[in-house]
Amino acid sequence: MVSENMRMIGAHRSCIRELFEYGMEYAKVVGRENVFDFSIGNPSTPAPEEVRDSILASLETLSSAQLNGYTCAAGDYAARQRIVDSVNRKIGGSYKADDLFLTCGAAPAVIACAKGLTVDHNSQFLVNAPHFSEYRPYIEPHGGTVVSAKPDYPNFQLNFESLGELLNEHTQAVIINSPNNPTGVIYSEETIRRLASLLAERSKQYGHPIYIISDEPYRELTFDGIEVPWVPHFYADTLVCYSYSKALSLPGQRIGWILFSDKMTDAAAVHQAVVGAARSIGHVCAPTLYQRVAADCCDVKPDVEVYRHNRDLLYNGLCEIGYDCVRPQGAFYMFVKAPCGDGDAFSELAKKHGVLVVPAHDFGCPDYVRISFCVEAERIESSMPLFRRIWEEVHGL
Amino acid sequence: MVSENMRMIGAHRSCIRELFEYGMEYAKVVGRENVFDFSIGNPSTPAPEEVRDSILASLETLSSAQLNGYTCAAGDYAARQRIVDSVNRKIGGSYKADDLFLTCGAAPAVIACAKGLTVDHNSQFLVNAPHFSEYRPYIEPHGGTVVSAKPDYPNFQLNFESLGELLNEHTQAVIINSPNNPTGVIYSEETIRRLASLLAERSKQYGHPIYIISDEPYRELTFDGIEVPWVPHFYADTLVCYSYSKALSLPGQRIGWILFSDKMTDAAAVHQAVVGAARSIGHVCAPTLYQRVAADCCDVKPDVEVYRHNRDLLYNGLCEIGYDCVRPQGAFYMFVKAPCGDGDAFSELAKKHGVLVVPAHDFGCPDYVRISFCVEAERIESSMPLFRRIWEEVHGL
Repeated sequence: MVSENMRMIGAHRSCIRELFEYGMEYAKVVGRENVFDFSIGNPSTPAPEEVRDSILASLETLSSAQLNGYTCAAGDYAARQRIVDSVNRKIGGSYKADDLFLTCGAAPAVIACAKGLTVDHNSQFLVNAPHFSEYRPYIEPHGGTVVSAKPDYPNFQLNFESLGELLNEHTQAVIINSPNNPTGVIYSEETIRRLASLLAERSKQYGHPIYIISDEPYRELTFDGIEVPWVPHFYADTLVCYSYSKALSLPGQRIGWILFSDKMTDAAAVHQAVVGAARSIGHVCAPTLYQRVAADCCDVKPDVEVYRHNRDLLYNGLCEIGYDCVRPQGAFYMFVKAPCGDGDAFSELAKKHGVLVVPAHDFGCPDYVRISFCVEAERIESSMPLFRRIWEEVHGL
Repeated sequence: MVSENMRMIGAHRSCIRELFEYGMEYAKVVGRENVFDFSIGNPSTPAPEEVRDSILASLETLSSAQLNGYTCAAGDYAARQRIVDSVNRKIGGSYKADDLFLTCGAAPAVIACAKGLTVDHNSQFLVNAPHFSEYRPYIEPHGGTVVSAKPDYPNFQLNFESLGELLNEHTQAVIINSPNNPTGVIYSEETIRRLASLLAERSKQYGHPIYIISDEPYRELTFDGIEVPWVPHFYADTLVCYSYSKALSLPGQRIGWILFSDKMTDAAAVHQAVVGAARSIGHVCAPTLYQRVAADCCDVKPDVEVYRHNRDLLYNGLCEIGYDCVRPQGAFYMFVKAPCGDGDAFSELAKKHGVLVVPAHDFGCPDYVRISFCVEAERIESSMPLFRRIWEEVHGL
């Protein structure tokens, strides 16, 4: 007499989480140096000094009520003002504090957006494989369905043929995630323009807006000077979800936001529905200490050189062995084709060598694995002989 | 083309939140000294020194990855061990770390429990008026229905006649909240025993367990030496939800927990379903800094003397004027009958005098208001002439 759906979601753990927790347990047995954990996106660069300074300043200058009390649901007004000011400077916008809604990270942000846009059990949310593996457990328990377009081989931009076929009158939103988890690919301005044009056309055809939910926790983590297009510049009906987990290396502290635009179709209704949905999933306010950390540190640039270095080490190393890898332009994930053609089998095989890589089945690409390279560079270097041995084992060498 | 239910939840704000935010805006106009804000349960006693010490120790001794990284979904193991040890000492239990699931406060804890127990659209959750106003927006968007038993006048314990009539084969759980928000009443051991006996009988009759969800953020805030019974001692099928918001004065920081018991009927399935439900509402992990704060400070006793003093000031003051008040045994709320017989009208009238009290309509008692006395004592004293004037206005004096 429990919810069978919820039990399944509880039982069928996130493959990332499962490997991550396995890795922690396994390290206790064989020693941390013998586990090469490339499973989870826990940033390896420390949080910047400014985070610590911000916390100390809050402890020193604020009363307990200011520091620890409830803020309004959207977050402390002054903090929101400083954050939107920073966004406006970066992307050339004119957002107001009231357009920003601070959340406990990107997960509840995306869920609130989708739940607010789920009009009935026919509502669909279109994603493009490979996509973040949690979208299904985030969205389907609230009545909508996640529909996954085919991958765009070999560039892993968007597959417009597949998207075009799957869009229909029940499509409420397209969820995009760029820099992408799991590929590290950044959707180009051309890709965003094409998507905007397709959605404008279909919105007109179906007589209702199809929104974009742009899930952007990796926005600041880009390499080689590539810029991430600001989606609302190309498509007004966009809800932007963000998290400080990656850029400020604070994944455990749960701080992020949703940015609304008053230029959206039915802007007031969308805002209300998303805020209502947030309340229904237990949002009271984002952690108040970290609301101020976000406001104090939102202009701090992450040290992407560490990840760029790791990317090169891993990409060059694996390519040299013979692996077929997508070259990441951002984030800290590399998408690698399983040489045996089956990501699950490859992940299992790698596990036997103490190497933890995430099978991409739940990302919509069962023939791939995801390798998180937000680890110490030494771990990547030391893992190379193992990746070679695994390659050889697959190929019977 | 948005969820109409979610839009309504976003539009029909929490009456508490609405007054609280009105109070903040109004204070900017007329000055903080002219607003008597008894709306929200923001603790007025500062967080204990130990919270600050814990944060400083974490900043000093932990690596950024330890401090800021994701923990497993249930929370850091060592932190959970220390917290259950503390619970076991207090209530004489034998809970294990794995029985504890740390959450972003009590709100998502209660939602996860209810969502995990919602088997279909017939599922019902029984509460007893007056009840916390947020249970409906927390539970009904996930498919269940909140059914409210009549108040137990004048003691505001549980109304067993009404509960008995409303229990049926679709009742999945009874949600209790003691010390109670909004009455400050503590359910006696006799009340809990009677509830346990009723639910045991009905569970047997309907052929499935009816769980208790015991929502206990005010457990430590009691006056006059009254102890809060530990519900699982009387009824094994109990999920306990807790928050450090009130006892440690940290409502904005979002840290709480769910405690499972392996003695529950279908314990493993319930645990899985609730954890799955937590994932579906965006739970990744509780804020890691505050996981450690909770572990470091879970034995710190709150300064209830401040609230006891406030209770006496408010209770004696209002009774002397003529108000019909429930005498709080815990928490920091007083439930007061609207002298005009209509809580909404009374709240509106009081607002005109700069006094913000919450109409109890959404608590299931439209003829009452809730007065939060977690304020400076001076505010209570200064408000008495206003409460007298309001009383006189109602009575045409």
